[in-house]
Amino acid sequence: MPSELLVCTTCRPADAPRDGPAAGEQLLAQVLALEPGHAGVVVRGIACLGVCSRSCSIALQAARKMTYVFGDLPPDTESAEQVLACARQHAQAPDGLLAWASRPERLRRGLVARLPPLQAQTPESTDAPSGGTPS
Amino acid sequence: MPSELLVCTTCRPADAPRDGPAAGEQLLAQVLALEPGHAGVVVRGIACLGVCSRSCSIALQAARKMTYVFGDLPPDTESAEQVLACARQHAQAPDGLLAWASRPERLRRGLVARLPPLQAQTPESTDAPSGGTPS
Repeated sequence: MPSELLVCTTCRPADAPRDGPAAGEQLLAQVLALEPGHAGVVVRGIACLGVCSRSCSIALQAARKMTYVFGDLPPDTESAEQVLACARQHAQAPDGLLAWASRPERLRRGLVARLPPLQAQTPESTDAPSGGTPS
Repeated sequence: MPSELLVCTTCRPADAPRDGPAAGEQLLAQVLALEPGHAGVVVRGIACLGVCSRSCSIALQAARKMTYVFGDLPPDTESAEQVLACARQHAQAPDGLLAWASRPERLRRGLVARLPPLQAQTPESTDAPSGGTPS
């Protein structure tokens, strides 16, 4: 099963204008322009990830893998490239673990949350996948 | 499949002492004291949810349901009760949707992120489960 790259389409940073396309829509467009289709990654626009105070935001999830949420992403090509690179890392990692040092720079700073796989989906229980420090 | 209530055990609010049990451990103990076992909810202590700036934090996830992350929870009995009440709501909701108005008070204020179910797990694609506003 591929990794899902969820891009919040309603994200508007606090200093962004209220009218016109949301910054999140712009980020989604940048991502889709770079990546119309890629084996292992499915891009989905989502009408709110609830990370409103840290716009723009994205998330990565897949069955039997760790889930990640990132924020503080400007809606530009650099973010789109880094987000897609990180999504490919997630798709390639068997457990979805994205080590801090391996992530693109904006995805090191912008961690909002990370969750372990559903226990019932994992072959064995691994409640502390990275030794207790956020990665 | 039950809903998983993930309690971050490494959460330490900025003003909390560095030695002694982490506030997250204390919150987990409060939750387990109230709820040694409940049909539909499984409690898991997790060594870091990555929500360090909004301690204490918890998450709710289940197959084919929305995922929620909450923070800003003091490690007291009131938080434990509200977290468990919300976990039961998640277990009972077919899609895991936790409407803002129905959530316990601390879980209204403390939303960190929410994610839709994996698309491949859902019977139909529903990318905007609540009309574009965070709930």
